[in-house]
Amino acid sequence: MPQLLNWGYWRAALAWTRRPRFSRFTTGHHRASCGPGCSWDPRARVISLQGELDRFGGVSVHLARLAELDRLDSADFQRGLQAAIQQWRSEGRIAVWLHIPILQSRFIASAASLGFCFHHAESDSSTLTLWLGEGPSRLPGYATHQVGVAGAVFDENTRKILVVQDRNKLKNMWKFPGGLSEPGEDIGDTAVREVFEETGIKSEFRSLLSIRQQHINPGAFGKSDMYIICRLKPCSFTINFCQHECIRCEWMDLIDLVRAENTTPITSRVARLLLYGSREGFDKIDLTREEFPAVYTGLFYKLYHKELPENYKTMAGMY
Amino acid sequence: MPQLLNWGYWRAALAWTRRPRFSRFTTGHHRASCGPGCSWDPRARVISLQGELDRFGGVSVHLARLAELDRLDSADFQRGLQAAIQQWRSEGRIAVWLHIPILQSRFIASAASLGFCFHHAESDSSTLTLWLGEGPSRLPGYATHQVGVAGAVFDENTRKILVVQDRNKLKNMWKFPGGLSEPGEDIGDTAVREVFEETGIKSEFRSLLSIRQQHINPGAFGKSDMYIICRLKPCSFTINFCQHECIRCEWMDLIDLVRAENTTPITSRVARLLLYGSREGFDKIDLTREEFPAVYTGLFYKLYHKELPENYKTMAGMY
Repeated sequence: MPQLLNWGYWRAALAWTRRPRFSRFTTGHHRASCGPGCSWDPRARVISLQGELDRFGGVSVHLARLAELDRLDSADFQRGLQAAIQQWRSEGRIAVWLHIPILQSRFIASAASLGFCFHHAESDSSTLTLWLGEGPSRLPGYATHQVGVAGAVFDENTRKILVVQDRNKLKNMWKFPGGLSEPGEDIGDTAVREVFEETGIKSEFRSLLSIRQQHINPGAFGKSDMYIICRLKPCSFTINFCQHECIRCEWMDLIDLVRAENTTPITSRVARLLLYGSREGFDKIDLTREEFPAVYTGLFYKLYHKELPENYKTMAGMY
Repeated sequence: MPQLLNWGYWRAALAWTRRPRFSRFTTGHHRASCGPGCSWDPRARVISLQGELDRFGGVSVHLARLAELDRLDSADFQRGLQAAIQQWRSEGRIAVWLHIPILQSRFIASAASLGFCFHHAESDSSTLTLWLGEGPSRLPGYATHQVGVAGAVFDENTRKILVVQDRNKLKNMWKFPGGLSEPGEDIGDTAVREVFEETGIKSEFRSLLSIRQQHINPGAFGKSDMYIICRLKPCSFTINFCQHECIRCEWMDLIDLVRAENTTPITSRVARLLLYGSREGFDKIDLTREEFPAVYTGLFYKLYHKELPENYKTMAGMY
């Protein structure tokens, strides 16, 4: 059921940023406006586009499923698409999703001239949309954030913290090693991986300390950025830092990082948070991590929040 | 400086998920492989592609800047691009970024046949990349996460919490109202907006309570999802809920939500967290929000972490 990947089956209210009004449409997937002649007839130069109806009243067309696509020219495609749009409108469809393999991208401009625009593209395929409903489009957008994670590796025995200075910066600032999450990578795993790649130090996830949200980010192609700092426990101590990324890397007394002037505001703030935690208990600053099963998908997710005492978790004897 | 939007000027280490090795390239932007004849000569059917060099040794080509683009056919373009790639390789360039207006998408397949693939596309433009460096591509990826935010609106006077049941769900579960962040929208603003749109209740941001990360998300076009729950204080109390999104909406005793079985695991957990906070102090569960100026961009960001006592923030008399 490929539409489920596109239409937020199990979390529709979240996937639709504006108010959906599609409850009159049936659930499940059907052929839309597609009789027995639903394919391309190269002799007659007539294409009748196959579409699949989703439960929100939208139609999805996968060009990769169309036979003899290589022989279809873009003018014929445009005529076929125009006719199909007319048909879908008359049937009350609210949107069209057009999935185009990269080697068939000659059809993109044809679709654009009929009002389609890019929803997203990745690797070898693009997805275009056309809103047919009333008012402005209520289609869900694509991913809006990149996620970067840094690791604050603090050694409780020596009260030292692992810090680096990046190469390629205008001003050398002490900061925590970190980098972008890879697709599908958990926050804690990014922190541990990046710390190892940058500094050679092995570490274990302890907690999530802070979250920063920043918009219109130059390093994120103009998208938003979520930057998360985790507290890590060192498992090794010999620094072997990446010369390409860093110019300096050291174990610094935490109090010296707190005092340091050549550091970023967020590093300085988190250093103070760590000082507070190390003096008065890390439970004062830590967000703990727990894994839960997702309701509909069978997948798992990680949930982070302040530690909840066991009696509140179970509510045993609490009523 | 359009490259700055693409290459993570101020946060290069984060923008490059693998190890960058480009320090030998100069900073600044130059014409690459582009002599006096750097443009398209329609009579000779020869195109010499203009590229701008970025500080990582990549070349960016903006087709929108090419004159008489409408008259260029894709075979001529492909020949020109192939020659340019050869030139860039000989000059030691490590990547090509190709920005193509949607109406010129006929050039995408030509580029793909030379090894380019989509980096991203949005609205009326797509960006393709070709890695010319050694080993696998080390180019930074595009946004990987959507961000959804829910509001746990808790009335401390009545100890009631605002909950909804979504329409369009297989099983009706009590949950907090919420939805996807719009591009550029702060977490707290999404919570307040979504609560108002779904329930008619006006509220104020108090704190961030929990963060969930989930991957391969069906509601996020297969991307990852960050789902954040905020604690909000109600400013109005008369429910006027959106009939299209919800089938029920009510002020429920917090203890009843803690006891409820028809609720999601995350709602149940956050209800217990709120019970703990309401009984023993919200400082036990809250992440506070603070705004900081960004180092290089002049923009501002929001930072969330456990409340830090004022003396640790200022360190006055703490050394």
